[in-house]
Amino acid sequence: MTAPMPVTMSATLAADEALARRRRAGEQVLSLAGGEIGLPVLPALRERLAAAADRNAYGPVAGSPALRSAVAGYWGRRDLAIDPGLVVCGPGSKPLLFALLLAVGGDVVVPVPSWVSYTAQARLAGARPIPVRTRPGEGGVPDPAALREAVALARAAGRDPRCVVVTLPDNPTGTVAAPGTVERLAQAARDLDLVIVSDEIYCDLVFDPADRAVSPAAFAPERTVVTTGLTKNLALGGWRLGVARLPDGPLGREVHARLVGVASQIWSSTAAPVQAVAAYAFDEPPEVVGYVAAARRLHEAVVRAAAERFTAIGAELTPVRATCYLYPDFEPLRDHLARTHDVHGAHALATLLAERHGVGLLPGTAFGEDDSSLRIRVATSRLYGETEAERFEALAADDPTRLPWIKASLDRIAEVLTDIAIP
Amino acid sequence: MTAPMPVTMSATLAADEALARRRRAGEQVLSLAGGEIGLPVLPALRERLAAAADRNAYGPVAGSPALRSAVAGYWGRRDLAIDPGLVVCGPGSKPLLFALLLAVGGDVVVPVPSWVSYTAQARLAGARPIPVRTRPGEGGVPDPAALREAVALARAAGRDPRCVVVTLPDNPTGTVAAPGTVERLAQAARDLDLVIVSDEIYCDLVFDPADRAVSPAAFAPERTVVTTGLTKNLALGGWRLGVARLPDGPLGREVHARLVGVASQIWSSTAAPVQAVAAYAFDEPPEVVGYVAAARRLHEAVVRAAAERFTAIGAELTPVRATCYLYPDFEPLRDHLARTHDVHGAHALATLLAERHGVGLLPGTAFGEDDSSLRIRVATSRLYGETEAERFEALAADDPTRLPWIKASLDRIAEVLTDIAIP
Repeated sequence: MTAPMPVTMSATLAADEALARRRRAGEQVLSLAGGEIGLPVLPALRERLAAAADRNAYGPVAGSPALRSAVAGYWGRRDLAIDPGLVVCGPGSKPLLFALLLAVGGDVVVPVPSWVSYTAQARLAGARPIPVRTRPGEGGVPDPAALREAVALARAAGRDPRCVVVTLPDNPTGTVAAPGTVERLAQAARDLDLVIVSDEIYCDLVFDPADRAVSPAAFAPERTVVTTGLTKNLALGGWRLGVARLPDGPLGREVHARLVGVASQIWSSTAAPVQAVAAYAFDEPPEVVGYVAAARRLHEAVVRAAAERFTAIGAELTPVRATCYLYPDFEPLRDHLARTHDVHGAHALATLLAERHGVGLLPGTAFGEDDSSLRIRVATSRLYGETEAERFEALAADDPTRLPWIKASLDRIAEVLTDIAIP
Repeated sequence: MTAPMPVTMSATLAADEALARRRRAGEQVLSLAGGEIGLPVLPALRERLAAAADRNAYGPVAGSPALRSAVAGYWGRRDLAIDPGLVVCGPGSKPLLFALLLAVGGDVVVPVPSWVSYTAQARLAGARPIPVRTRPGEGGVPDPAALREAVALARAAGRDPRCVVVTLPDNPTGTVAAPGTVERLAQAARDLDLVIVSDEIYCDLVFDPADRAVSPAAFAPERTVVTTGLTKNLALGGWRLGVARLPDGPLGREVHARLVGVASQIWSSTAAPVQAVAAYAFDEPPEVVGYVAAARRLHEAVVRAAAERFTAIGAELTPVRATCYLYPDFEPLRDHLARTHDVHGAHALATLLAERHGVGLLPGTAFGEDDSSLRIRVATSRLYGETEAERFEALAADDPTRLPWIKASLDRIAEVLTDIAIP
């Protein structure tokens, strides 16, 4: 059988599975690879799932009316009011992003660096990704001037870019692009007639309210699709639910119809009991708001403490302002790594950390970087405890970095970094 | 924006949503369109979902070890023993079928008639469907001789067919292809080097054990992928879980790796609490076996009673042997329908039944037939009641066709058919 196209296993999921195998084999491993949020389910949401266990009908492809109305309310409270008829639910924001690429068609501009699946999804959708670098310290948004140039070049070469993906706040860098940059990106997309797909799954995980990400939907409302989900805010990755907000107007309604058509052929609908929970969660009752706030404080304390370990050994790091990700650059240590460890790129650096120290994280290559770069992505969201009791305690702690199990992981990071960095 | 390809909304889901809107608007409608199973969730499964509400991790892309082991046991009890490592779970068998088309690549042979989504999925996957007629009375399996001819022609024309889809038992015809036909199909697939994707979601809904469908995996184990799910057996369509059984051997392991790669990029994993329920259900404890047996008896009683209404007015109908579908052909009534109702094809016939009588069903065109044909598909799985109490009573009834709400629907079918068929 001739393979029609390369299919790469999601780098985060592959790394997670490899670490889980090593852990089962009795090895001591530190999981800094996948961005799964290691926190317990809010008890009120467990109760809602149990109460919805009689729901077994497919329901509408786009999601139940109650869910879509709650999601419209959620976006309304974030200055992105929308008709519930333009909300589409799917089994994760990942399938929605894939279906959007199919629905819009054409080639796709992706930021570099960016989340591991955009490029792979574009290829599966039959599109070619067009990589465009982000501006320093402003991850997730392709540099607007470079975007214009790249699209002009692609079109001159006969290609058909129709879409640009942005991540606000950003994975892998944990940064938030400035509103001015987002506005220029939106203006460029309008001038170039591109649909903007804005992945805002981390939008409630910005540490300082003053840093809040501004959506391109604020500047180009007629062409911006926004996606989010329950995965990051509420630690419900394993429940698989995401939502998309389609733009109002003729373009948005066309993309909406095509998106619902694609969804009807690929996944039919989203698990009905999970939809019932999501309708409750997107209404943002006080216990949900409280959980998200506690999780945000926890992410901030731990990711910043981890950041200090990287800067302490001389890695370069833009201050993290959101999410639970760090994207340190070991460039200042290049000579030392080459000389002492025969490490010349991020892939070799990640392998060294995994095989010598049992520390799993991802090389920048998984996010679209050249292998000569020495950037790696570190996710700290698995450090909150092994048991449910530890995780609840982490959520409630004033200073979670002093909890013994979190402190032990942070100390282990420091120890490993010192070992590889110090001559 | 130029659309890259036509995206058709799933005909069953579109018809269901249209009927639901009419019902909400106060119209009296009879839903014979979508194959959703209108039965309640088995209480033991509700309890299992509630008990699994703390599971929020992604887990392995292919599904939890417990689920894969239970599914391997399920197939083992059906003469299809398999290594749990070759079982892959997804959010419905629909996404698994789509991902398989992407994983195998190339063009796809589909039976005519066949389920509404195979052709649409093939187009979304960038493939071209190659339609091949089934043999009379043996739906779901392309005629093996015609398959050989069609693939030879396609290859001569420079196309690249790599896969053939079969449905055993069949939707839309409610028939079961004979083992001899399946064996010849398997031999043809081997000679032509095609992967067989065998959709066996109705495998436990064959009325007479002597009619049991034989999987092509029995004849071409090295190249047959089998799919099933919880949707039809256990009325859990809205919970979205399906599984695939990949063939052992080099071809199977290659397709398995590609399928898991595609799954990791499109949907990550399947709702974890639903996986926990599925692990329990695929183990087939007595209450699950009892529920499936009761549902099978109910489907048989109601679909056969409905069939009598169609044959009574002179429609042609192959005896239904499985599922809850009828596929009557109004050909004997062609002159009358043309003269009295200006109806010359299935689409117009379905429109007449919907608009004049509030009866929703699907024209054969949705299953790949020419519009000149007068075939329609009738699904009787929504007639079991409006309330949970009615539905439980239907499951338990000795003769469900005498329950007032089911009898009323059957009488309504007879009345409408008489109205359109009698001069």
